[in-house]
Amino acid sequence: MSFKPLSPQKSDIQYHLASRKKDKIRSDIIVGTGDNKVIINDENLTIIAGPCSLESRDDSVALAKTLKICGANIFRGMIFKPRSSPYSFQGVGKTGIETIKAIKSEVDIPIVSEARNESEADVIAENCDLLQIGTRNMTNYQLLEYIGRLNIPILLKRGMGSTIEEWLCAAEYILNQGNQRVILCERGIRTFETATRFTLDIAAIPLVKELSHLPVIIDPSHASGKRSLVPPLSIAGVGAGANGIMIEVHNKPESAFSDAQQTVSVETFSELVKLAKIVSKTIKFQ
Amino acid sequence: MSFKPLSPQKSDIQYHLASRKKDKIRSDIIVGTGDNKVIINDENLTIIAGPCSLESRDDSVALAKTLKICGANIFRGMIFKPRSSPYSFQGVGKTGIETIKAIKSEVDIPIVSEARNESEADVIAENCDLLQIGTRNMTNYQLLEYIGRLNIPILLKRGMGSTIEEWLCAAEYILNQGNQRVILCERGIRTFETATRFTLDIAAIPLVKELSHLPVIIDPSHASGKRSLVPPLSIAGVGAGANGIMIEVHNKPESAFSDAQQTVSVETFSELVKLAKIVSKTIKFQ
Amino acid sequence: MSFKPLSPQKSDIQYHLASRKKDKIRSDIIVGTGDNKVIINDENLTIIAGPCSLESRDDSVALAKTLKICGANIFRGMIFKPRSSPYSFQGVGKTGIETIKAIKSEVDIPIVSEARNESEADVIAENCDLLQIGTRNMTNYQLLEYIGRLNIPILLKRGMGSTIEEWLCAAEYILNQGNQRVILCERGIRTFETATRFTLDIAAIPLVKELSHLPVIIDPSHASGKRSLVPPLSIAGVGAGANGIMIEVHNKPESAFSDAQQTVSVETFSELVKLAKIVSKTIKFQ
Amino acid sequence: MSFKPLSPQKSDIQYHLASRKKDKIRSDIIVGTGDNKVIINDENLTIIAGPCSLESRDDSVALAKTLKICGANIFRGMIFKPRSSPYSFQGVGKTGIETIKAIKSEVDIPIVSEARNESEADVIAENCDLLQIGTRNMTNYQLLEYIGRLNIPILLKRGMGSTIEEWLCAAEYILNQGNQRVILCERGIRTFETATRFTLDIAAIPLVKELSHLPVIIDPSHASGKRSLVPPLSIAGVGAGANGIMIEVHNKPESAFSDAQQTVSVETFSELVKLAKIVSKTIKFQ
Repeated sequence: MSFKPLSPQKSDIQYHLASRKKDKIRSDIIVGTGDNKVIINDENLTIIAGPCSLESRDDSVALAKTLKICGANIFRGMIFKPRSSPYSFQGVGKTGIETIKAIKSEVDIPIVSEARNESEADVIAENCDLLQIGTRNMTNYQLLEYIGRLNIPILLKRGMGSTIEEWLCAAEYILNQGNQRVILCERGIRTFETATRFTLDIAAIPLVKELSHLPVIIDPSHASGKRSLVPPLSIAGVGAGANGIMIEVHNKPESAFSDAQQTVSVETFSELVKLAKIVSKTIKFQ
Repeated sequence: MSFKPLSPQKSDIQYHLASRKKDKIRSDIIVGTGDNKVIINDENLTIIAGPCSLESRDDSVALAKTLKICGANIFRGMIFKPRSSPYSFQGVGKTGIETIKAIKSEVDIPIVSEARNESEADVIAENCDLLQIGTRNMTNYQLLEYIGRLNIPILLKRGMGSTIEEWLCAAEYILNQGNQRVILCERGIRTFETATRFTLDIAAIPLVKELSHLPVIIDPSHASGKRSLVPPLSIAGVGAGANGIMIEVHNKPESAFSDAQQTVSVETFSELVKLAKIVSKTIKFQ
Repeated sequence: MSFKPLSPQKSDIQYHLASRKKDKIRSDIIVGTGDNKVIINDENLTIIAGPCSLESRDDSVALAKTLKICGANIFRGMIFKPRSSPYSFQGVGKTGIETIKAIKSEVDIPIVSEARNESEADVIAENCDLLQIGTRNMTNYQLLEYIGRLNIPILLKRGMGSTIEEWLCAAEYILNQGNQRVILCERGIRTFETATRFTLDIAAIPLVKELSHLPVIIDPSHASGKRSLVPPLSIAGVGAGANGIMIEVHNKPESAFSDAQQTVSVETFSELVKLAKIVSKTIKFQ
Repeated sequence: MSFKPLSPQKSDIQYHLASRKKDKIRSDIIVGTGDNKVIINDENLTIIAGPCSLESRDDSVALAKTLKICGANIFRGMIFKPRSSPYSFQGVGKTGIETIKAIKSEVDIPIVSEARNESEADVIAENCDLLQIGTRNMTNYQLLEYIGRLNIPILLKRGMGSTIEEWLCAAEYILNQGNQRVILCERGIRTFETATRFTLDIAAIPLVKELSHLPVIIDPSHASGKRSLVPPLSIAGVGAGANGIMIEVHNKPESAFSDAQQTVSVETFSELVKLAKIVSKTIKFQ
């Protein structure tokens, strides 16, 4: 008779996590090149912002300029969108590459974009600065191994139904192929609560920093699914020690192609960045 | 064919919440009397601290003195402990009243204590300053109605398996009996994640402040079950707008009668209070 | 570094469960008296049926007669209803006692009814044959201890946010006060799935039979919240080894005072009882 | 103020589900060819059995022979295993193809095997009779679209953190590429309960049969993670209307390469198949 949860052999992953943690400090992960490159570490608060999915060329360039002025370090340039339904908007696709090039040449800000398979990963690795693996592909281990051999930093979102241990194991699939530039992103887990879209697991931030040497950011937009909750959750994340925040922002939030309800305005974003940076400094200098 | 969640009639509770919110500002809730009374509102950050359960008279008085010096506004003086197993320590019981009286006379700090039924509620109402209803009794509606007729402020913890809506409904059971001094306490919900004892629902803080006029505090000790997570979760809660934090502290955490793993030392508590107060002021003055 | 879930001392409860199991066979629990008494054990399939909450005297007597003819062994005569909102219908209350007396004298069928506090428990113990503790009071340990000293069998529903271990611990609160007649009832747990009201934890049935000597029944009505799912879940429960099923039935399901969506018609009930009894016998005689 | 859960546009998927359901009866899905082909529909109970992962050639052939005699219709011949940790056994890989060929030539039983990416899907489509998409790849939509263009029936497991609606949407990714032979498999979801590995969502069986025209089977081995629970959960699934069951069986369960704790012996399997078939017939002929 036993109430103990059943779990796969844990010794290996714990051994690897501990040895990576002991051997390394939380190393700088550099995203982008040149003057506007971003160094992700415990000294800086990284701000990632942009629309849920990339829309028209001109609107995107204009938004990227504005967000950079407001304090964004990395722009969300999502062109491939994994969607629960095959009948939902799936992103602008490869035609968005021209928009990404335009943003890079006209605004000079690093760009993060998501890939759903190997060929999309090649496209992103060639044209962007940070490759996102979304929540639905955290357990797509063959894709993780593939990107573990690419030369681009990875933003690894937590699976919405995955434990912290499984998330760290997923990071190992990338790390043990050679790519050491992995950034974790907590984006909310599935729970019984329906008042928010997901439940942001705020304790995951200090816990993964305790267990591993990898930096971790939060995505309060997808976690909450509710515009008004994005600023308080962002500040909470900074308070819990997150190395960065990723926010969905749109010039006209209500008319965003996807996830309009969780997208904040530029004004709200600007205010929340100011506050997040002050809180981040307050914590570091105490 | 419908995927809509099935739920009881919601119109009534939404009507009552909205009307209470419109009619009132987030009113001051006063806990205690005299010089050391605490005003719980959006201007102050309330710090509640003490052992999981009250132990010996002398240790308790000494700890209360120390915690008051470190910034605690209210002392945890738990004498009746609801426990999952009938074979676990159930608190010191009514003999603890003498210790509570000693703390009040020697330290002059308001005391919060939990009741599990009507007769315990009478004892707490007579001897303490704040009456806690624990997570296991949030759905004990007959007890809620009873304390709704007592003259003592109530700290209403969220049920570990209860939605935010059900938690606000539980508050209504108290409010509509006449007792308007209800403080909500988020203490973590049951999810699939086992790396922490519960999952602190950080989004609940801004959400209940949006939906109701009641103040809300967090309990990072029970939520995480892990000492090292208590400071970052406390700061996260303050960052999300919590009106207060409740922390389990012990002179010798490892030898606490119950919940030793989640109890922090006086030194850790002292540091986290300093930081929490600075972050709280930082947020308010931006 | 450890991923192990944190839990209270388990040795005591496991010791008690094992010793009760070893010392006793799954003992007969007798509900009611006289010719229509019900023996709950592994030989019989017990059928409990009736409306979600008791309504008018004449309708209730008529429904009880019909359900008895259709194979019901125990009638649901709920007069005190715990409800999430204080503004929802709370049952007919003590005035329902006259209806309960009428059913007993005119139909001669044992009656189960729920109590929410000690005084209601006294009323039920005096007038009914089986006392239900609902999901919201499974962790109301003071009430469990009180009914552990009453002379009436107990139907203990599982808390919607409670683990199987906590449910068995709750049973211990009753058993260790002397009342050995405890019947467990699985009624669905809180999960992320919203297509059903709760998720019926079908594995709980064989698991509690393995861990304890207590009989266990299922409540597919509350678990699913959906009329069309009640028959297949009933048969599933019998297939998993449940000692009984509890079904919400109404003459006009659509106009039931509460939980209309999950209430089946008399015709559906009659069909599902026939099938459940055949499956039950099929399993026993293989 | 709203408590409504936020969800993506649902009209499209509901429209497609309903139109597929209306246009078609639950069509026969044929797995395999020749004398031993299996017809999956509401008339038959399909039994899938075999080890968690394929082991040596001789043991596998011998086990397949035995299981066929015991009533298995399809053999589990898993050679590519998705595992949470990169350091766990990942299956025998392509070298297992020779074993699969040996089983097919010597035992003549259709074989199901899992693929984790496009190239593995090609291998399975060429050598096996049924292609499994595991729980971790249910949201790997690019892989679903790819196999939607292959000529092999698909066994689509539910994501452990996915709703029933998302599972049906995932099936649409395959169906709308042209492959109409999709069989759903409920294998347990993530919940707070740790006494079992996952929580088998038994209500999913009648619900997906109500919402779609696709057949559905259950996997009680992965759902429970506990050998003793496999027989009662199998019978429960049949009682709820499942079109089949998939069971992990091994000649020496304790020494299986993976998932030993949830693997049953040949003797247990033989008994449970007999009972499952009797219950299945009992239900159909009432």
